[in-house]
Amino acid sequence: MAGDNRTPVTVIGLGSMGRALAEAFIDAGHPTTVWNRTPGKAAPLVARGAVHAEAVETAVAASPLVITCLTTFEDTRRALEPAAVALNGRALTTLNSGSPAGARETDAWAAGHGARFLAGAVKNVPSAVGAADTLLYYSGDKTVFDEYETTLRVLGGDTVHLGGEADLAALYEMSVGAILLPALVGFFQGAAAVQARGLEAGTMVRFAGKWLDMIKSLLPVYAKEIDSGDYTDAASSVNLFLEGAAYDEELARETNVDAAWLAPLHDLVKRAADAGHGDHSISALTEVLRKPAQAV
Amino acid sequence: MAGDNRTPVTVIGLGSMGRALAEAFIDAGHPTTVWNRTPGKAAPLVARGAVHAEAVETAVAASPLVITCLTTFEDTRRALEPAAVALNGRALTTLNSGSPAGARETDAWAAGHGARFLAGAVKNVPSAVGAADTLLYYSGDKTVFDEYETTLRVLGGDTVHLGGEADLAALYEMSVGAILLPALVGFFQGAAAVQARGLEAGTMVRFAGKWLDMIKSLLPVYAKEIDSGDYTDAASSVNLFLEGAAYDEELARETNVDAAWLAPLHDLVKRAADAGHGDHSISALTEVLRKPAQAV
Ligand SMILES: NC(=O)c1ccc[n+]([C@@H]2O[C@H](COP(=O)([O-])OP(=O)(O)OC[C@H]3O[C@@H](n4cnc5c(N)ncnc54)[C@H](OP(=O)(O)O)[C@@H]3O)[C@@H](O)[C@H]2O)c1
Ligand SMILES: NC(=O)c1ccc[n+]([C@@H]2O[C@H](COP(=O)([O-])OP(=O)(O)OC[C@H]3O[C@@H](n4cnc5c(N)ncnc54)[C@H](OP(=O)(O)O)[C@@H]3O)[C@@H](O)[C@H]2O)c1
Repeated sequence: MAGDNRTPVTVIGLGSMGRALAEAFIDAGHPTTVWNRTPGKAAPLVARGAVHAEAVETAVAASPLVITCLTTFEDTRRALEPAAVALNGRALTTLNSGSPAGARETDAWAAGHGARFLAGAVKNVPSAVGAADTLLYYSGDKTVFDEYETTLRVLGGDTVHLGGEADLAALYEMSVGAILLPALVGFFQGAAAVQARGLEAGTMVRFAGKWLDMIKSLLPVYAKEIDSGDYTDAASSVNLFLEGAAYDEELARETNVDAAWLAPLHDLVKRAADAGHGDHSISALTEVLRKPAQAV
Repeated sequence: MAGDNRTPVTVIGLGSMGRALAEAFIDAGHPTTVWNRTPGKAAPLVARGAVHAEAVETAVAASPLVITCLTTFEDTRRALEPAAVALNGRALTTLNSGSPAGARETDAWAAGHGARFLAGAVKNVPSAVGAADTLLYYSGDKTVFDEYETTLRVLGGDTVHLGGEADLAALYEMSVGAILLPALVGFFQGAAAVQARGLEAGTMVRFAGKWLDMIKSLLPVYAKEIDSGDYTDAASSVNLFLEGAAYDEELARETNVDAAWLAPLHDLVKRAADAGHGDHSISALTEVLRKPAQAV
């Protein structure tokens, strides 16, 4: 495919994710310029058709759309500092992880250099880049999103703009991502229990997959309860989870698995019951997680 | 449909779940006898076609297959005690939640009364009873399972026998179930963060659902790593999660959400890194959760 009328793109940061981003643009026929602190990482991309810029300012100057994928927002600003002049008038899009505060700082920094800023986040692994259902969040300058939406969709078919505030992508990435570590530790806990019985963790996979489907089906119900603040129509009550807590600890003892991480979760459930939510939906835990507004 | 050649079934315990079980049997044309400590709960089932036994011994004597759904294994044994003689020669199937130890005690108790025992667990909510993909685990006496499999399938199309040991259903129910509370608290945490920004939790649902699909797709990979003990081919490393931990705490501060429950999870990640798993897959946390075998 000829890339003549495709938007030239610069990709800065060629780690696992940055490399996948660059490959997607090259394969879609976009003239692609790449830069990485450790220059050796550019070689396989050059072999695939990219142009390697020796200096970061050359890389930035090569394309109207500059996409960065470094470890943090701070790394990004530091690496781009020598290219500050070249950034003027360009569209800058970050695709690293980070906090909303980091996105806001980078937004202010980019504005200070005359760049239009769109903060993004890839909600998936590098191998998923380019797939039709891969989700990428963006927030910040909507003119950048509108102008380059077709180009950005090369990275994933499920490309959304969450709003004009630059930190919304990070907020959603982290808020949605908050499920990951606890869910995985729950799975590992179960795997260790099954293994303690001489059985393979693999025997749990089909059942755990179904269980995640079930959890998925409950999310709209819980979100509605949380948004309305009405927890009274409980499919699974706080008290039901309170009963389960004792069994969890019993099983952990029997299978010699460390359940210390479960104690504060059980404590949340107990605090919800103590606060009068015993017969309410388990989603009432949200009320316990939310701290009272602090005195100013 | 005439129920003449369908196995007569007794359902004991008519709470939310027991009622759903009884309804499924009635609707499938099984002669269904019901009993509940608080007898009033039998009325809607009698209206639907069930026979109400006044005494628990009459209920047990009415059918070759007796299914209980009380709160705990202990409640089950206590409630069945007056029916001990009638249990002799019958098939008893429990469908309550509980620990493997509770299932073992009930197995011994049932054997002492000459009953064949099959311990089951419904991996779903009452409204899912009877659906084609509803999962029910069973373990224990395989002759009971084989003899009554068609009848048991009335409760859910995904009906499995895990093995001859009566406590396996509880082990799997709890091990697979270990994902639920932590995953939900992760979702509630995210919901509280989004709400702190004046946005609705409902806006997260589509993204969180996709995220659960992604987690589901990772389970076979993680199970393989855990079973092989080879964590070196890391799609997401322990160090990646370690970096994320700082952001989680930053976001919690910014959105005024209590992150105390996250500390022991982050501590597990840190302990895994300290144990040399930094570059290994996050599934190496399983090694940290597993306690060293205790001295006897
Ligand atoms: N991999 C994933 O599964 C995944 C998924 C979603 C989001 N992300 C996010 O994407 C971002 C990149 O992840 P990755 O997996 O690609 O990481 P990685 O493989 O470790 O690559 C990190 C990249 O950042 C560069 N870098 C770091 N600090 C720098 C600095 N001060 N100056 C210049 N360059 C610097 C590195 O350059 P050198 O090559 O010179 O070290 C490298 O190109 C992270 O924020 C990550 O959280 C990753
Ligand atoms: N509901 C769910 O979503 C769900 C899902 C999966 C598994 N389960 C499990 O299914 C079991 C039953 O749950 P449920 O939701 O049906 O509970 P429920 O609505 O609270 O009903 C509890 C039942 O147990 C009876 N009971 C408790 N202690 C008793 C005793 N000592 N003697 C006689 N009867 C006693 C109650 O009788 P009274 O009516 O006289 O109080 C009632 O019939 C539990 O182990 C639960 O964990 C439930």
